[in-house]
Amino acid sequence: MAAAAKAENLSLVVHGPGDLRLENYPVPEPGPNEVLLKMHSVGICGSDVHYWQHGRIGDFIVKKPMVLGHEAAGTVIKVGSSVKHLKPGDRVAIEPGSPRENDYFCKIGRYNLTPSIFFCATPPDDGNLSRFYKHNADFCYKLPDNVTFEEGALIEPLSVGIYACRRGGVSLGNKILVCGAGPIGLVNLIVAKAMGAAQVLVTDMNASRLSKAKEVGADFILQINKESPKEIASKVEKLLGSKPEVTIECTGAESSIQTGIYATISGGTLVLVGMGAEMVSVPLVHAAAREVDIKGVFRYCNTWPMAISMLASKTINVKPLVTHRFPLEKAMEAFETSKQGVGLKVMIKCDPNDQDP
Amino acid sequence: MAAAAKAENLSLVVHGPGDLRLENYPVPEPGPNEVLLKMHSVGICGSDVHYWQHGRIGDFIVKKPMVLGHEAAGTVIKVGSSVKHLKPGDRVAIEPGSPRENDYFCKIGRYNLTPSIFFCATPPDDGNLSRFYKHNADFCYKLPDNVTFEEGALIEPLSVGIYACRRGGVSLGNKILVCGAGPIGLVNLIVAKAMGAAQVLVTDMNASRLSKAKEVGADFILQINKESPKEIASKVEKLLGSKPEVTIECTGAESSIQTGIYATISGGTLVLVGMGAEMVSVPLVHAAAREVDIKGVFRYCNTWPMAISMLASKTINVKPLVTHRFPLEKAMEAFETSKQGVGLKVMIKCDPNDQDP
Amino acid sequence: MAAAAKAENLSLVVHGPGDLRLENYPVPEPGPNEVLLKMHSVGICGSDVHYWQHGRIGDFIVKKPMVLGHEAAGTVIKVGSSVKHLKPGDRVAIEPGSPRENDYFCKIGRYNLTPSIFFCATPPDDGNLSRFYKHNADFCYKLPDNVTFEEGALIEPLSVGIYACRRGGVSLGNKILVCGAGPIGLVNLIVAKAMGAAQVLVTDMNASRLSKAKEVGADFILQINKESPKEIASKVEKLLGSKPEVTIECTGAESSIQTGIYATISGGTLVLVGMGAEMVSVPLVHAAAREVDIKGVFRYCNTWPMAISMLASKTINVKPLVTHRFPLEKAMEAFETSKQGVGLKVMIKCDPNDQDP
Amino acid sequence: MAAAAKAENLSLVVHGPGDLRLENYPVPEPGPNEVLLKMHSVGICGSDVHYWQHGRIGDFIVKKPMVLGHEAAGTVIKVGSSVKHLKPGDRVAIEPGSPRENDYFCKIGRYNLTPSIFFCATPPDDGNLSRFYKHNADFCYKLPDNVTFEEGALIEPLSVGIYACRRGGVSLGNKILVCGAGPIGLVNLIVAKAMGAAQVLVTDMNASRLSKAKEVGADFILQINKESPKEIASKVEKLLGSKPEVTIECTGAESSIQTGIYATISGGTLVLVGMGAEMVSVPLVHAAAREVDIKGVFRYCNTWPMAISMLASKTINVKPLVTHRFPLEKAMEAFETSKQGVGLKVMIKCDPNDQDP
Repeated sequence: MAAAAKAENLSLVVHGPGDLRLENYPVPEPGPNEVLLKMHSVGICGSDVHYWQHGRIGDFIVKKPMVLGHEAAGTVIKVGSSVKHLKPGDRVAIEPGSPRENDYFCKIGRYNLTPSIFFCATPPDDGNLSRFYKHNADFCYKLPDNVTFEEGALIEPLSVGIYACRRGGVSLGNKILVCGAGPIGLVNLIVAKAMGAAQVLVTDMNASRLSKAKEVGADFILQINKESPKEIASKVEKLLGSKPEVTIECTGAESSIQTGIYATISGGTLVLVGMGAEMVSVPLVHAAAREVDIKGVFRYCNTWPMAISMLASKTINVKPLVTHRFPLEKAMEAFETSKQGVGLKVMIKCDPNDQDP
Repeated sequence: MAAAAKAENLSLVVHGPGDLRLENYPVPEPGPNEVLLKMHSVGICGSDVHYWQHGRIGDFIVKKPMVLGHEAAGTVIKVGSSVKHLKPGDRVAIEPGSPRENDYFCKIGRYNLTPSIFFCATPPDDGNLSRFYKHNADFCYKLPDNVTFEEGALIEPLSVGIYACRRGGVSLGNKILVCGAGPIGLVNLIVAKAMGAAQVLVTDMNASRLSKAKEVGADFILQINKESPKEIASKVEKLLGSKPEVTIECTGAESSIQTGIYATISGGTLVLVGMGAEMVSVPLVHAAAREVDIKGVFRYCNTWPMAISMLASKTINVKPLVTHRFPLEKAMEAFETSKQGVGLKVMIKCDPNDQDP
Repeated sequence: MAAAAKAENLSLVVHGPGDLRLENYPVPEPGPNEVLLKMHSVGICGSDVHYWQHGRIGDFIVKKPMVLGHEAAGTVIKVGSSVKHLKPGDRVAIEPGSPRENDYFCKIGRYNLTPSIFFCATPPDDGNLSRFYKHNADFCYKLPDNVTFEEGALIEPLSVGIYACRRGGVSLGNKILVCGAGPIGLVNLIVAKAMGAAQVLVTDMNASRLSKAKEVGADFILQINKESPKEIASKVEKLLGSKPEVTIECTGAESSIQTGIYATISGGTLVLVGMGAEMVSVPLVHAAAREVDIKGVFRYCNTWPMAISMLASKTINVKPLVTHRFPLEKAMEAFETSKQGVGLKVMIKCDPNDQDP
Repeated sequence: MAAAAKAENLSLVVHGPGDLRLENYPVPEPGPNEVLLKMHSVGICGSDVHYWQHGRIGDFIVKKPMVLGHEAAGTVIKVGSSVKHLKPGDRVAIEPGSPRENDYFCKIGRYNLTPSIFFCATPPDDGNLSRFYKHNADFCYKLPDNVTFEEGALIEPLSVGIYACRRGGVSLGNKILVCGAGPIGLVNLIVAKAMGAAQVLVTDMNASRLSKAKEVGADFILQINKESPKEIASKVEKLLGSKPEVTIECTGAESSIQTGIYATISGGTLVLVGMGAEMVSVPLVHAAAREVDIKGVFRYCNTWPMAISMLASKTINVKPLVTHRFPLEKAMEAFETSKQGVGLKVMIKCDPNDQDP
């Protein structure tokens, strides 16, 4: 039985820095408020690659083998006894963070801040890069027929953009600065435009990333070389015609945070999405005296339902973000590809019988 | 000189119910903080027609001759001594409301609520349906080259939509119900979509108006016949898949307000844009117990700059709203057309040398 | 054993209109996330009396025997297997509403709106007017030593005031109108003052209730006779020196809601706390054109922890609200007293060995 | 005549670093929207002393003689032609910042951010430490009879507290950390309590300042020695029982800003009131990942009317802040006293015929 179970659930497991293995895990049994999912599509995130390469991110350390993957969608095949809103056959997108207790943060609607939250592929919690996976049913959201599994999986990175833009208060007619043209910068660009931003300017040091940003809808791109933060801020103002109401910093670099402070209009907001060094040197007095609010984001909350509405109504298009696909059996190759940074999003296809988007 | 001046400034003046005249007014002299404008395009609003037909709207009564027109754009030809941000030759859109004093409401950023506000074509204040017109320079906004005068004039009705959607808190992925498919319903539809609404459903009793709404971008239309408010609410929920987060009521009809209360999701917002009877009978307890907030709008504030950004960046397209054009000399004919309701927006062209959009 | 158990848990049960009985119920067994409480103090609410008198409130109908009581505090005597933050001996205040599922409303922090919520003494859910009672541990809040059980029980009515004032945006220096000087009007008065309201004016038709309001801290009282809503609004403005920023309507009467619309300053908020007739006739256009927002409240959410902080720090004093006490055995007498409306809050003492406040 | 005028208006003028003089200035003539005031009480602010000592604050440099003083109240003796809400004899408090143009920031209600604002005693604008002074009538607020001139003058420092607490979102039942027990720390303490904060903890390195904080209402005080920011944060949490929802940093010290980041609860707000070094090293990633928002304040806006309401209703008491009084003729002595920091607020009495509070 154990052998049989092992054979059933191929999973991608990180054992420590540089130690990534495809292994057979037992198929889990859903609890009363859980569903068992047959996984379909799981995107590779920078954090997955980081755990593989370094065995840790900050204080989160891989101390025991951990299944990777948290950008995922699949099909319900079994429901727990108290699950009412899902049934076998439902196609769902998975929100990877699921609170373990109903504490102060959950009650006020900021459940992402609850310290004991379960989160896929953050040590010690297993992710869902596997054939089968069980999850809290309240954090599995039914996909309409016209939303693909891959779109469902992309709701996770998209949520970072939705949440950051929401925290920044992006609104109709705004001018927006996005620092960084990686996947997170791009989803912020896409979301800001969807929220009615009039102009989005994206900065990066890398020309090819910037040309991708242009493709995805950036109104302006600005390649950073050796300019000082104040010089960049000045260029941004010139390009946009006035300082941006919101700056979304996606690099974590000290100089870029400084740029964000100088560049944002008085009374505007700088959102910190990128995570960088523990201590940074910044002109806080400059932000304070111009009332540029500085707000960080920790993952996201309350984004899946609205993201599904947007995808179903074709308000936004995230499909171009997927540049590579690999079957689960070739997950090692997929991770190598992702590590090399040649594309945008690498998608792993977990269902051997359905490798469609 | 006086005679000459009189000859220069053809204006459309309402003298009382049914009494509309094209007359020559003196060309005004701008004060220190004013600019003199050569008018280009002025849209006809339902309120203009109403003053002509009835000589009043509620407590606002035409007691002396009043120039009509408040949806307008033109060119600066003279600036007052203390005006710094504008110069002759600048093309501008005019915000018709301009506060006369810096009171509590102005200071908190809700200047539309200041009781002594000057407002074009609201008795006793003259509007700008004329060859020349002077206005507070702070409420004239420079148009970029790629925004036409007519787009500039359309910022006024567009502002009603921007402000209503903002008050309603329309946000990304929302489902929205718009009651009424007249010009105000349509701008709300356009703005809601621009803000990222996933689905907008528009209701009306008139099929041809609804088909216009469909053209302009409505995801769903619903023709109202004799259904009760609860029945309509139920149909709305079925079409959208769930109750809308925001309902924007643009008819002022009692039954439509009732529908808005029943239709909106718990915790959502009903925005009252349409103005109807003094007293209405509504199920307030139903709204209260489900925490459906009811918010009205009085005109708008802080919308011109963002609207210009949006028009300049082509984020929204209001050009299809203009269905008829008349030179100022044929203003009477223009008003007849508008009264008959055959098109959407009738535009009056005030510059005899430039009748372009 | 069953007989013994029955004998242990004296409970006050309503069987239908006018049919109130003291009965022995079994002592419940807490589930994994529940705690068993030895009840100490339970206040009688108007709704308890209403269920007794009429067997229903609106659509909530007593179809089977239901234990009354939802303003309560007690001591933990047993904890479920997964309860971590409480232990036997902890004194707790009980939040009577406890969501049954983690739905959209819970996730966004408005759990009071979740339709399937459990709520003490709302049919068909039993309340806690008994010797022993089990409750969701997440909705039991530990009381510090310097907060009495009765203060803990009073957090429930106090929460109505906290939530209404919060929804109304009561803030420092505001002028506030509270319509109605019953218990709910008084807690709103107390909370508004605690939030820094400069002046609170309380209206009522009953002089003795108004003098109680004066005692509790009202800056102004106004006895209503036969004045029209507009006349009352005018008197309110005269007394306060300007229109109030927030009006909190606690009567549910149509004329009082009308008064609230006329009385509130442009841009202010009318909060509907009182529940009245299904349909009311109100000057909505007057509210809309002055942007007086109308917001209802459904019970409350996220109030217990802050209320405990306030009580512990003596920021507010609710002790004067308790005017009568009865042991559980005399609950019938207590309800008669409450029905007659002779005092403010009648408290039932459930612990035969500790009848202290 | 010139000589006579000179004799009339004794003023305290800073000419450069260390160069402070009592001089006779001409009595100004009010413009159409201005009032001429006979000054009564003017408090000395740390910035006044700083301009005297250093001739500059940051980029604001005293390049020509400048009258000091911006915490002031006086009596209207002459009104400009278009002033309607004031008349000679009115006692008023002066808001020192008065916008020169109605720009974007003014229109959205954040007029403190308008770059061209006039501000008393900020170079090159003269302050009001003189016998007579003219000011924009819209920024003079009538005092009720039961509010003294000194209370009127104290509205300026009080406004810093009101605005900081408002920006921080201080609300009922909150736990608040105030860093710094100088005058600004104390007004924040007073305001936070008035807004319903359950517990306010004040830190400082100076024991006597802390004992003043205790007198003024601090629930907890904590003397800082050589503890690290993390250690202080830990002590704060222990004293308050949980992390504070809002931290108000009034020192500008780098270590104190760091403390604010570590000390504030996840999802809370750190308000920067103190102004320190241009660049500071801070653990921004720690703030971002816990969503501790960082907000600065630039002076204040929209505080005078509410402050007057509060003072009139005796909701707060600022009188204890005044520890010294000097007649205008002894202004040099007053500034010496203020420089030595022996008291809290030094008040200068400008009316030789009325030296009362």
